[in-house]
Amino acid sequence: MSAPRAATPGPGGGARKTELELELGSSTQTSHRLLAYSDALLSIIATVMILPVAHTKIHPDQKLGESVQQLLLTKIAVYLMTFLIVTVAWAAHVRLFQVIELIDDVLALLNLACMMIITFLPYTFSLMASFPGVPFGIFLFSVCAVVIGLIQAVIVVYGFYHPHLLNQQIQVSENQNFYKRHILKIILRGPVLCFLAAIFSFFFIPLSYLLLGLVIVFPHLSRFITWCKTKIVGPREEEEASYSLETFSFYLSEPLSKERVEAFSDGVYAIVATLLILDICEDNVPDPREVGEKFHGSLLEALSEYGPNYLAYFGSFVTIGLLWFVHHSLFLYVTKATRLMGLLNILSLAFIGGLPLAYQLTSEFAEKSHNEIEAIQVSCVITFFASIFQFAIWTTALLHERETLHPFARYGGKEHAFMFAKLALYPCVSLGAFFLTCLLSEFSTEIFHLMQIVIPFAFLALRIFVRISLTVIKSVMSLSRRKVVLLEEEEACLSPTETHS
Amino acid sequence: MSAPRAATPGPGGGARKTELELELGSSTQTSHRLLAYSDALLSIIATVMILPVAHTKIHPDQKLGESVQQLLLTKIAVYLMTFLIVTVAWAAHVRLFQVIELIDDVLALLNLACMMIITFLPYTFSLMASFPGVPFGIFLFSVCAVVIGLIQAVIVVYGFYHPHLLNQQIQVSENQNFYKRHILKIILRGPVLCFLAAIFSFFFIPLSYLLLGLVIVFPHLSRFITWCKTKIVGPREEEEASYSLETFSFYLSEPLSKERVEAFSDGVYAIVATLLILDICEDNVPDPREVGEKFHGSLLEALSEYGPNYLAYFGSFVTIGLLWFVHHSLFLYVTKATRLMGLLNILSLAFIGGLPLAYQLTSEFAEKSHNEIEAIQVSCVITFFASIFQFAIWTTALLHERETLHPFARYGGKEHAFMFAKLALYPCVSLGAFFLTCLLSEFSTEIFHLMQIVIPFAFLALRIFVRISLTVIKSVMSLSRRKVVLLEEEEACLSPTETHS
Repeated sequence: MSAPRAATPGPGGGARKTELELELGSSTQTSHRLLAYSDALLSIIATVMILPVAHTKIHPDQKLGESVQQLLLTKIAVYLMTFLIVTVAWAAHVRLFQVIELIDDVLALLNLACMMIITFLPYTFSLMASFPGVPFGIFLFSVCAVVIGLIQAVIVVYGFYHPHLLNQQIQVSENQNFYKRHILKIILRGPVLCFLAAIFSFFFIPLSYLLLGLVIVFPHLSRFITWCKTKIVGPREEEEASYSLETFSFYLSEPLSKERVEAFSDGVYAIVATLLILDICEDNVPDPREVGEKFHGSLLEALSEYGPNYLAYFGSFVTIGLLWFVHHSLFLYVTKATRLMGLLNILSLAFIGGLPLAYQLTSEFAEKSHNEIEAIQVSCVITFFASIFQFAIWTTALLHERETLHPFARYGGKEHAFMFAKLALYPCVSLGAFFLTCLLSEFSTEIFHLMQIVIPFAFLALRIFVRISLTVIKSVMSLSRRKVVLLEEEEACLSPTETHS
Repeated sequence: MSAPRAATPGPGGGARKTELELELGSSTQTSHRLLAYSDALLSIIATVMILPVAHTKIHPDQKLGESVQQLLLTKIAVYLMTFLIVTVAWAAHVRLFQVIELIDDVLALLNLACMMIITFLPYTFSLMASFPGVPFGIFLFSVCAVVIGLIQAVIVVYGFYHPHLLNQQIQVSENQNFYKRHILKIILRGPVLCFLAAIFSFFFIPLSYLLLGLVIVFPHLSRFITWCKTKIVGPREEEEASYSLETFSFYLSEPLSKERVEAFSDGVYAIVATLLILDICEDNVPDPREVGEKFHGSLLEALSEYGPNYLAYFGSFVTIGLLWFVHHSLFLYVTKATRLMGLLNILSLAFIGGLPLAYQLTSEFAEKSHNEIEAIQVSCVITFFASIFQFAIWTTALLHERETLHPFARYGGKEHAFMFAKLALYPCVSLGAFFLTCLLSEFSTEIFHLMQIVIPFAFLALRIFVRISLTVIKSVMSLSRRKVVLLEEEEACLSPTETHS
């Protein structure tokens, strides 16, 4: 039973670690806490981008159609773009600190400067969202991205100037310059595109948006192209030569570390849960004067006006909490996150970041306007996409289950069926709620809230449910098999008589 | 050079850990990620409490004196109280999961339910801040605290019902009931006081506040009293008996784990940095219509109005980032955080949480109103307290340096002087700026911004500066020592002649 004690890093473990890192030299440190802090900031910043979208003012009388719908759609598209660009910056950050494994004070301060520019991004996004026709917003966004790239490049140059900070394998290697160029290329390709976007923003804004979009898909595109090439032409000789020369180049194209993927995801889930309460704190605290005049000083009466909002808040919190729970359960059995799994995780997080919008819509429109059904359907769609991408992570992991999954979760493993049920619950329920609201449009609010209340209990009962269904399936299978066996026996009994006759 | 690789938990290490935890059984898991997520949520929630204070509307023409000052002071007092109560809940949570080391799905869901109630606390605080005379806000706050306590009690009962989830030492122990009662007592003493506060809120509100204040000081008070008792009377026999009976009870009164203190602190620093940009996104995006009318459609001109705000934003971010940097440097050399250090850390964090208020004040009043100096002085005071408590952590650690500090940071250690300089920089500078603004009140804004710009460079140059001053001190010391030696020699030369003569 000493296994769990060893696994949980207690104070003793921390002390041991500190000693290890201090043996090296007084001014260098492992980057573990710096990275955790950066992950927290980056995930918060990526998620905060939803706020200008969620706070789009719509009057309850206004139909949630036509122009408003279009405005929202544009904003959502821009939100997804900026969220994904921040994740690209995060991925570059992860790569960077896979190469530079130890930090000193200068690097810590440079990293903080980088974080400062990154926290400024939501403001530029607000400008972009409020003034879609003015080039200044997108120009500022691109300039910030360029500055971030430059600071990261300075970090690389500094790191290679002080080789004792570098990854061990690179330190030992003979041609460090190759790695330097390689990591600089990875870090700077985004900022170069952003630089072009900044220039073009003054001439033709759509082109800038296209270039920023390219920043997101570029890494995946280039990988896809090389993959196609190797499939069609076969691996090039040149590449093979460089491969044999540099066994370590493989390391740089390795997937992101599972730990940092988890830290980033946790940040997004935590801040989304908090954004909800920020909204409630802002919108649902009645004005003292109004309470005095309208409700004769009775605070309770004034608050009872907000009843549906509280219901929407707790419903949304439950959704976020349970999606975190599913994510947590899934990554417990993931031993290594491949690139594709990382991408799917980020897409899932982008929709998780959209949940405050869903909350705003359901709390504003619930039982007040014509747009009730639309609001609920938007919520269902966001929940569906957030959960279906989680499910996709799982199916992708199953494709390479030997590398990516713990034996328990593989086909035929102890936890396989249970995991499947856990991941399939939210997509099924949200899809069901969506179609039910289409059919029974009168009861849409009731259906939605019932769904939100029932799901936690469904999770609690899931294990029992899975066991029952598994035994049912097994007994049915064995029954049918017995039937087959019986039939075969009958046939076997018949056939000799037939051959006899 | 394999030490740093072993210290940084890479993907390989993660995989190994997962296997370890899964060997135990399919449904139990180590609680590491659950705790990280809880820490993030708790720290965010504690910090968000500052928002109703920071968003107190004050007109620029209004003097920042008299009634407004009083209103702000009350709000700040209530903020400090709620912040500290959340940290008490956090400490109880840490204790709880020191006893229960493994989790299963039911515990994860129960913990999420607990988190849901905790995220609702800022709303109740908003109600308290907006309606100080109405009992409902404080009643709701207390009820939430009671519910949190009850859920945690359920977690304890569930954990002791499934002993394989418990800490190894308790599992082996013969009288688990003792531990159960002990941990329940720790967890429930806060909620019991809150329950009383909820009841008294309808009769006499100040008493409720007093009871809530008692929740904060109670653990420290009871410890202080037992400490006094043992000092005066000497250790009681009864206690000694129970001590020898239960060697493990010592474990329960051990300080919180350093890792969770770090995680909680990181959460506070990260969310404070983000609150600033949220404010900027809300207040400093001009209205499209206004831009069209007032600035003839020139967005740049409209934005140049906000110049001082950007300066205030970057200044505040630099302050937060560098305070995090100091905290990071300090805890790198801390091997174990004692109770007193934990308390000082939380007090420091409470003032860090006040920095958004400082930002609001400096950005709103800068060069616009009569309250410029007051705003800047408030900022200086907040920065001073945040940094002086960090310094206090260091001095407290030095008192028991054998247990708490790495050899490098102890008296005479390699890094001792440098650490001292790092921690002393912010208190000195903020105190200096405070008194300078008193003397040169006309240039207060310039002084403040200059301070914010100079400090990062001061940190970069600090190591060189410390080395120079150390060599200067050493040479002065050796010079004076040589003088002493010379004098002694002279005396020695003189004395024989004297004795001769």
